[in-house]
Amino acid sequence: MVESRKMKLGAFLPAPGHHVAAWRHPESVPNGGHDFEHYLNITQTAERGKFDMIFLSDGNGVRTHYKNEDELSRQGRMVHFEPITLLSALAVTTKHIGLTATASTTYNEPFHLARKFASLDHLSNGRSGWNVVTSVTDAEAQNFNLDQQPDHATRYRRAGEFMEVAHGLWGSWEDDAFLYDKQSGRFFDPSKLHILNHKGEFFSVKGPLNIARPPQGHPVIVQAGSSADGQAFAAKWAEVIFTAHQSLDQAQAFYTSIKSQAERIGRNPHEVVVMPGVFPMVGRTREEANEKYESLQELIDPVVGLGLLTGLLGDVDISGYPVDGPLPELPETQGSTSRQQLVYEEAMKKGLTIRQLYMSVAGARGHKAIIGTPTDIADELEEWFVHKGADGFNIMPPYLPGGLHDFVDLVVPELQRRGLFRTEYEGTTLRENLGLVKPAHPSSHPVKI
Amino acid sequence: MVESRKMKLGAFLPAPGHHVAAWRHPESVPNGGHDFEHYLNITQTAERGKFDMIFLSDGNGVRTHYKNEDELSRQGRMVHFEPITLLSALAVTTKHIGLTATASTTYNEPFHLARKFASLDHLSNGRSGWNVVTSVTDAEAQNFNLDQQPDHATRYRRAGEFMEVAHGLWGSWEDDAFLYDKQSGRFFDPSKLHILNHKGEFFSVKGPLNIARPPQGHPVIVQAGSSADGQAFAAKWAEVIFTAHQSLDQAQAFYTSIKSQAERIGRNPHEVVVMPGVFPMVGRTREEANEKYESLQELIDPVVGLGLLTGLLGDVDISGYPVDGPLPELPETQGSTSRQQLVYEEAMKKGLTIRQLYMSVAGARGHKAIIGTPTDIADELEEWFVHKGADGFNIMPPYLPGGLHDFVDLVVPELQRRGLFRTEYEGTTLRENLGLVKPAHPSSHPVKI
Repeated sequence: MVESRKMKLGAFLPAPGHHVAAWRHPESVPNGGHDFEHYLNITQTAERGKFDMIFLSDGNGVRTHYKNEDELSRQGRMVHFEPITLLSALAVTTKHIGLTATASTTYNEPFHLARKFASLDHLSNGRSGWNVVTSVTDAEAQNFNLDQQPDHATRYRRAGEFMEVAHGLWGSWEDDAFLYDKQSGRFFDPSKLHILNHKGEFFSVKGPLNIARPPQGHPVIVQAGSSADGQAFAAKWAEVIFTAHQSLDQAQAFYTSIKSQAERIGRNPHEVVVMPGVFPMVGRTREEANEKYESLQELIDPVVGLGLLTGLLGDVDISGYPVDGPLPELPETQGSTSRQQLVYEEAMKKGLTIRQLYMSVAGARGHKAIIGTPTDIADELEEWFVHKGADGFNIMPPYLPGGLHDFVDLVVPELQRRGLFRTEYEGTTLRENLGLVKPAHPSSHPVKI
Repeated sequence: MVESRKMKLGAFLPAPGHHVAAWRHPESVPNGGHDFEHYLNITQTAERGKFDMIFLSDGNGVRTHYKNEDELSRQGRMVHFEPITLLSALAVTTKHIGLTATASTTYNEPFHLARKFASLDHLSNGRSGWNVVTSVTDAEAQNFNLDQQPDHATRYRRAGEFMEVAHGLWGSWEDDAFLYDKQSGRFFDPSKLHILNHKGEFFSVKGPLNIARPPQGHPVIVQAGSSADGQAFAAKWAEVIFTAHQSLDQAQAFYTSIKSQAERIGRNPHEVVVMPGVFPMVGRTREEANEKYESLQELIDPVVGLGLLTGLLGDVDISGYPVDGPLPELPETQGSTSRQQLVYEEAMKKGLTIRQLYMSVAGARGHKAIIGTPTDIADELEEWFVHKGADGFNIMPPYLPGGLHDFVDLVVPELQRRGLFRTEYEGTTLRENLGLVKPAHPSSHPVKI
């Protein structure tokens, strides 16, 4: 069977790489979070590999609730560029690759975010993406006048209204609203200006936005929540879904479920691009791949491993339990419920001790790890892609820049040889490369004075 | 007398230029607000002219309260890039020039703004500036859950607390906090991490900031408020003060007053750089300069002129008064009280009709206009500079790019010839070029767990 679909690829690029010990890798740039040349290098490498986009995760705080100063001092990657400023700089130093930033609907105002993403979309000529998150830590809440984060349901209700306001603001001006008629003195056609006048539970926003409609209509909306609320949100709003699965079965079940949820509310399921995370450790031989993996695993500081696991479990304190014993039963959390469940189930299924569990999640953090040759990795990606577990993948290089170079130089050519991945960018915008149509201007009433 | 001080120069760069009819000028780029190439061109021109910085004004809304759609449609420059994203892109495509963005303390959260300016400072290797404003329109308030803006005093009280929080957050990490010690696994020295734990009237912010201390310690703080509250704020926080004066007398009085206010609260008056705005219309002859000015004046649409005047008067409705009669007495406003007063006094002093007044403010908008040859302009700048009316000037080209090219090619060489202006950048950061010292790390207690 000839596969006519093409795989989509995102590059997940925290400065040192995805593995928790990446910053200790001999090749890594440990201060890469503040080093624009490093980001330019890895972004241009991803562009050379014809990736659809790079992807920056984000939070609005630093967790400092560790047991003591020594444990705190061992946490890497606490500091880095703010993503929208960094992507603005990358927008004018790259040509093709999409630029997706994470931003929270819980601690922002829709006018600011709608405006900044519109500005990024103009600077990049239509290559912006927004990974919508509702945030998951009290450390963030405490930077915004709160003691603890709003509960899960409230965060998602606010997120939904936030999206309505943002989409409304992006429709402030029609694409051809501006006349620039020097002769008559008419700057724009007022029948193509729309005033939002939104009043809702969380927001009262009049509009219009003080920037023209983004070239893509709006940034590509990316979402990664996998809880019930998260899936309902994704089915309604997301155009790209980042997700985490360990097996093809799980991936297929999610793929079918999310596409049919989208279809049930009237969306075209092809316009929801499902991209599970994959942590690839590439070797020229399997032995080399395993050695590279083990040498990174050996760099895991035990206190950091335990801290990482605590975070993945929604900040449940497990420090009182023996690390060589099993995970205790977990209470309900207001953090990321889906991630907690995924990690917990994995531990139960495999009968892992706490230590074994944190070692196993330190690399891929709940995402699928593939350790092997370019052929091994291409085989697995092909299987998931062809059997509808994925429309593409969010590639999480273990360390940077080496882990990305390996993927671009060794795995991408193999995917291209099999006809699974592009050899040239199809379009000029992120939306075009992802096979998504530009949304029609939302119909609403023009300004009336 | 040999003048040892050097003049500082900022370039005020709204996309079409400062004159209200600039976008209708035959040379102007009317869609320049969304055209990165246009901004790169004018910023590189300012850098070629050894300007200390470019300066972007900003607001978080579009005024739509005009009498009818036709009047609305004649308002230019309603849409443009968001400044911090635009300056991030310019940070990596320029080398020397400072990059100053306006941002409001009334409609932002300190964690976000402190973080974004820190990120811009890292991207530019120490060339960021922040023009702190408290905003002046209800149109902005209505995009942020309010019906009307908070009153003047409340806005300034919030601004003061905002600055305390922002400065505290910029001190989260000492300059040498990061060890990046791959061998021992220690990422940073915890004795050099500071937790803010701010709790005040408007903000409760724990910190720390998730980005390293900015290369400049913090962005250069710019301020333009001239009311009593504005001056008190500037004396306390500002490192650069943008101001507006029509005569050397006025400029000297302000210069002396603001420097002594700063000195009284323990600051070095040399570290408050006073830069009045200047609107230069450069001609190779005086006749040419006058002709260029008149040809721009002829492009002023009467409804736009009247609307501009209304805005400068704090949105006081004067539409019921005959345009060829005098300005009525004005009620108190919650907008920019200092600007209202300046414009009102100018009208009274010269006995201007409403029409004469809007024609006179359409170009320079309350700032000093100098229409003449490069020698004329250099003479006036030199007089203000030498006689302590100014430490430098915020140059407001009437139209772009032409008005800036004229200044850089004709006036800057004349200032350099007289020894008043640099021929090479003195330092690598904006702070160094302005002659400002990097602030010491604020003393506070390191993190304790």
